[in-house]
Amino acid sequence: MLRFAEAQQRVLSAVSPVGVERVPLAQANGRYLAQEITATLDLPPWDNSAMDGYALRAADLSRVPVMLTINEVLAAGHQTAAEVKEGTASAIMTGAPVPPGADTVVIVENTDGALSGSVRVLSQTPAGANIRRRGEDVRRGQSLLQRGRRLEAAEVGLLASLGQREVCVAKRPVVAILATGNELVQPGAALGPGQIYSSNTATLRGLVLQAGAEVLDLGAATDTQESVCAALRRASGADVIVTTGGVSAGVFDVVRAAFDELGVHWDFWKIKMKPGKPVAFGWLQEQADRSLVFGLPGNPVSCMVTFLQFVRPCLLSMVGDDKPFLPMIETIAGQAFQKKSERTEFVRVRLERQGRDWVCFSTGSQSSGVLTSMVSGDGFALLGEEVRAVAQGAPVRVQVYNPRLLHRAVEVDG
Amino acid sequence: MLRFAEAQQRVLSAVSPVGVERVPLAQANGRYLAQEITATLDLPPWDNSAMDGYALRAADLSRVPVMLTINEVLAAGHQTAAEVKEGTASAIMTGAPVPPGADTVVIVENTDGALSGSVRVLSQTPAGANIRRRGEDVRRGQSLLQRGRRLEAAEVGLLASLGQREVCVAKRPVVAILATGNELVQPGAALGPGQIYSSNTATLRGLVLQAGAEVLDLGAATDTQESVCAALRRASGADVIVTTGGVSAGVFDVVRAAFDELGVHWDFWKIKMKPGKPVAFGWLQEQADRSLVFGLPGNPVSCMVTFLQFVRPCLLSMVGDDKPFLPMIETIAGQAFQKKSERTEFVRVRLERQGRDWVCFSTGSQSSGVLTSMVSGDGFALLGEEVRAVAQGAPVRVQVYNPRLLHRAVEVDG
Repeated sequence: MLRFAEAQQRVLSAVSPVGVERVPLAQANGRYLAQEITATLDLPPWDNSAMDGYALRAADLSRVPVMLTINEVLAAGHQTAAEVKEGTASAIMTGAPVPPGADTVVIVENTDGALSGSVRVLSQTPAGANIRRRGEDVRRGQSLLQRGRRLEAAEVGLLASLGQREVCVAKRPVVAILATGNELVQPGAALGPGQIYSSNTATLRGLVLQAGAEVLDLGAATDTQESVCAALRRASGADVIVTTGGVSAGVFDVVRAAFDELGVHWDFWKIKMKPGKPVAFGWLQEQADRSLVFGLPGNPVSCMVTFLQFVRPCLLSMVGDDKPFLPMIETIAGQAFQKKSERTEFVRVRLERQGRDWVCFSTGSQSSGVLTSMVSGDGFALLGEEVRAVAQGAPVRVQVYNPRLLHRAVEVDG
Repeated sequence: MLRFAEAQQRVLSAVSPVGVERVPLAQANGRYLAQEITATLDLPPWDNSAMDGYALRAADLSRVPVMLTINEVLAAGHQTAAEVKEGTASAIMTGAPVPPGADTVVIVENTDGALSGSVRVLSQTPAGANIRRRGEDVRRGQSLLQRGRRLEAAEVGLLASLGQREVCVAKRPVVAILATGNELVQPGAALGPGQIYSSNTATLRGLVLQAGAEVLDLGAATDTQESVCAALRRASGADVIVTTGGVSAGVFDVVRAAFDELGVHWDFWKIKMKPGKPVAFGWLQEQADRSLVFGLPGNPVSCMVTFLQFVRPCLLSMVGDDKPFLPMIETIAGQAFQKKSERTEFVRVRLERQGRDWVCFSTGSQSSGVLTSMVSGDGFALLGEEVRAVAQGAPVRVQVYNPRLLHRAVEVDG
């Protein structure tokens, strides 16, 4: 059986980048840059005042207090300004361009008698004070953001300050999701004997959106090759196809047969991991277009674990993210962990802060049948193939999936 | 001047919860629960097989190998099943209900000669093995999720597994954003003398979306009371109104006058913090509806810092999030920090992992004129009012705003 780490590498090797598109800045949040961003202008674009005050010549402050005649009042956005000559000053607002002749701004708090035609400057101010120089923050031609950068609020704001209205980003990968199983009933309907509610599509939708991709919901198919095939044909154009259920060893496993009928090239079918042993991976090639295909297990936890380990890295890698895996932290085992299998195990754990350490505890039941262990956990303790047991107090690496974990790092006293 | 921590508390005190609404599960990701979730059924809803194998009576395995007659093949979703009598077994797939009479499932790997009418069981299996009991994961009536919980993928999946099609969540707060300033030009247009590109709206849009709220973009107003008033009148119905620019001490500060005209009740106007001293907070009351009003500074960094410290906690608190502030971690100063002001300072820092510590370094220029320091930083080193300097190696608390910080916690060897 294939080792976990090798399976992850094989998935990443099969990834090719999605296309690029230009989007308005208002739609750029959370997208990934497909171009390098180089400054197209100096920021600030001209010398301007960092404070409300008076623009003047430092030479006039050799003796203070000194009275200076006010030329005019310069607001931000002011476009022409009189020269500041000896013995004069121009009132200036934060952000307004420094007028010709002036080399210094004295802040309003160090003056007296403003706006009555003249101003008394009370204290000396070194030449150049309170002026933001053209290009001080960003120089035209300077490289600011690299390809593959995820655009958060600050990055989008920076693009706007350069005057960009649009930005070139990776397209969102489209992920077709198909649930399979005769036992599945849609939420909202009544549950008959032997039936359970279909929940994997709901979970996967959230995981796909979190990974910055789009969902193409193929609904649920019954356990016949025809039903699965018919649903999969509607996935045309998807970058990734994800099915859940129907990949284990049983005679009712028709997903594999359906994919075979469509011509999937299989890479692997089983992995030495727990939960999640039956995970299929391959691709459908249609001329230049390749759809990556993941057959995930039907158990809710197995489905989620295998998505996070294989499909999420695949989606992030497609858009150029250089950190496609869940972040990993060093923790201390808060309890002993036993391990029976020879597979890599992903134990759902809660993380507690104890002094400077993160300490991990099993969420209790590790049942893969329901998501309560995921909901109460913060991450996966990663127990490698060779591990048989972890003693209390031993180091354990944990992959973090709770985005809010850092809130537990320090108790803030208010 | 008001202390920073008190200003934060005053903002939170003024918050009232937004209303609630029912949304389909497909739209529930990232929303906040407005109801407690109690299990309405047992999960699993009936005893079922955890594996592909044979359902049988453990008593029949007193001597192995043993041949058993196969009754039928039970797939998941199978709704009626024959009783398993002495000397017989029913083939059973993962997830299928355990048939009456059977008390044990033997996995297929421990059998031989399947599906030819009889099966040879090769090894003993304890009674009850490989059966998931009804209610083993979740008991009907059990409390599963609390109000105020943010719904991530696993929570939404759990709701689906309970058969819920909709869920009651807090409405998204609506945030009206108005940029002010004669100097502002919209990205895409040509930049004239004395002009800069309007970028705060682009930044704030991302911050508002990240906080789970909606944007009502009021565009940009010039520095006249009429222009600002006209724009603010279009904010009717917004839960929060945010303006940028025009709140400092200068004579062109018209935002305050415009809000006064609309009848804003001001709470505070200046805070002992840097960047961000001129931050105004108050509210507009119209019958039962209250809009919270924030006047943020126009400098891009000051605008972003004050949003993160005041508006974000306000928005998260409105929807019931009990962790409305940025997460805080303990770090070590990687360099000395000097501090001139008597205000609480928010120094943009990069965080590096060194052994078990996070070490913080200034991003360099702390100019509030452009967002490069935010883009290259991971968080704000919080230097309190009383602090004058921080020695290299001293502890420093850092508020983290980079959501990807944990990726730097451990170098993974691949």
